[in-house]
Amino acid sequence: MERNNGNLIAFRPDIKVVDCTLRDGGLVNNFNFSDEFVKDLYRTNIKAGVDYMEFGYKASKEIFNKEDYGKWKFCEEEDIRAVVGNNDFDLKIAVMADVGRTDFKNDIMKKEDSVIDMVRTATYIHQIPAAIEMIQDAHNKGYETTVNIMAISKVREDELTKGLEILAECDVDAIYLVDSFGAFYPEQMRRLTDMYMEVAEKHGKKIGIHAHNNQQLAFANTIEAVTKGASYLDATVSGMGRGAGNCYMESLLAFLRNPRYNLVPVMDFVQKYILAEKEKGSIWGYDIPYLLTGVLNCHPSSAIRFTGDRRTDYSRFYQELLDHME
Amino acid sequence: MERNNGNLIAFRPDIKVVDCTLRDGGLVNNFNFSDEFVKDLYRTNIKAGVDYMEFGYKASKEIFNKEDYGKWKFCEEEDIRAVVGNNDFDLKIAVMADVGRTDFKNDIMKKEDSVIDMVRTATYIHQIPAAIEMIQDAHNKGYETTVNIMAISKVREDELTKGLEILAECDVDAIYLVDSFGAFYPEQMRRLTDMYMEVAEKHGKKIGIHAHNNQQLAFANTIEAVTKGASYLDATVSGMGRGAGNCYMESLLAFLRNPRYNLVPVMDFVQKYILAEKEKGSIWGYDIPYLLTGVLNCHPSSAIRFTGDRRTDYSRFYQELLDHME
Repeated sequence: MERNNGNLIAFRPDIKVVDCTLRDGGLVNNFNFSDEFVKDLYRTNIKAGVDYMEFGYKASKEIFNKEDYGKWKFCEEEDIRAVVGNNDFDLKIAVMADVGRTDFKNDIMKKEDSVIDMVRTATYIHQIPAAIEMIQDAHNKGYETTVNIMAISKVREDELTKGLEILAECDVDAIYLVDSFGAFYPEQMRRLTDMYMEVAEKHGKKIGIHAHNNQQLAFANTIEAVTKGASYLDATVSGMGRGAGNCYMESLLAFLRNPRYNLVPVMDFVQKYILAEKEKGSIWGYDIPYLLTGVLNCHPSSAIRFTGDRRTDYSRFYQELLDHME
Repeated sequence: MERNNGNLIAFRPDIKVVDCTLRDGGLVNNFNFSDEFVKDLYRTNIKAGVDYMEFGYKASKEIFNKEDYGKWKFCEEEDIRAVVGNNDFDLKIAVMADVGRTDFKNDIMKKEDSVIDMVRTATYIHQIPAAIEMIQDAHNKGYETTVNIMAISKVREDELTKGLEILAECDVDAIYLVDSFGAFYPEQMRRLTDMYMEVAEKHGKKIGIHAHNNQQLAFANTIEAVTKGASYLDATVSGMGRGAGNCYMESLLAFLRNPRYNLVPVMDFVQKYILAEKEKGSIWGYDIPYLLTGVLNCHPSSAIRFTGDRRTDYSRFYQELLDHME
């Protein structure tokens, strides 16, 4: 089925921009953001017209030691409220919950008691039944919900179709197309968005896109997905995120034609915080090792080690990757 | 007209990879490459299976002082031969000649006396008659020829169509779609490639693509153009080129499925030379100021000054650009 739900001039009121800087960026610096960084990012997102700000993970304190991470790994209600108060703005608050790593029954309170608006569940294909339990729990507590199916570049298409169908039958609001390994080309992204949209439209769901920049395609893949009908768009300031990082918020806001989005506060935030974050030693962004894991469709962890070790022997690393291919 | 001349698996024997590192990269360091850099790049391109290596410009010594630039601004026959000898390899040698800035009648000798294989003419739309004179001169002297129409994101479509038609009637081998300002999105690139291909196929010409990375779309736009039938693909090592730079050779070779291309020597070259080139102070690559000139469809010169001055007041720069829009 051919779709073209957007073009360069089209106004798309269904678009929602989701800032994931604290969540995906937290994977770069172990969630060690200063309070000033977080407060200013919140104000920046309000001024920029961003629709959702993801504060981090709702990770289980049974599984993870609180001392080992910054507070945005856990997103306690009082920590969010210390930044947003009652959040008397249009910007909505989101958190992510990983299947199997969240004590959601205890840690996610009823919406009426929380300043959080949206719970985003992240799942692998084989965990979808567990994901649905979490989604229904959040939905019943009164939250908006989305779901990320991760690592689909390793999933057979018939399995993916079945997974999508099952998810679309639950009370989730949006299903995300996620390119965990930065492995997809725009041509594939268009085809996959068509496939996701077909299921979504049948069940009245929205589609989201979460891209990684291993091949410098995160922005390209995001806007191609938009053209095919995706409406929840994940981005991070200067692409801050694990490994090669994500779609740049700057590029995305400059692309979107809706006047409610404003690039200027984001550029000011980059000037004030992101340049300093890089000087502090946080490493992310396109580089050859991430290109290689992207092209070979494998997890970026080995590339993150490679850049962390300040290695530059790219060819040897490539050989190591080939030696360890499944 | 809908075309799909390639997909991710397709084998495209018509593809030609053109390395422009010395030419577009020379705009970054005033063509001051060490002899070792150039010799090793030549060996790298041979081992990588690259089809053409562009050595630089054939600039007029009447207009430009030889003392003000490195030698690859002028590409004297003896300087090229000092690197390639008689070039007894499949790699072909190219040079670029700008309309109005080349003393082509004197400086471009007969092909039988030269180790150069291809003369690439660069022209603005209003210079096309002068470009055709240069193309015919090079063709009659025995060279392969290509032509770049620059800055087309500022050209009206009816004018562009007329320009393409006139060029396609001369003896040029390939016409390049050039995104001088990094202003185009993939959707536009597909449409433009269709438009160029329609003229090209009528006249038996090939289409090339030369992209800039202002919006981190140089690689994406290049592979989208490939899918629509473009076959001459410009890239530079690590994207080295003016301002935001170009399509990364690493990404392009990793993408192409033809086994004659080999990524490994290019990665070794990056390790040995490109990291050092950056440490020497050469600045290129995606950054906010280039994003802004790309989105606003203007020449990157002001952004190059901004980054050269180590400014980071992006919002002020944005305002300056808006104040100076035509």
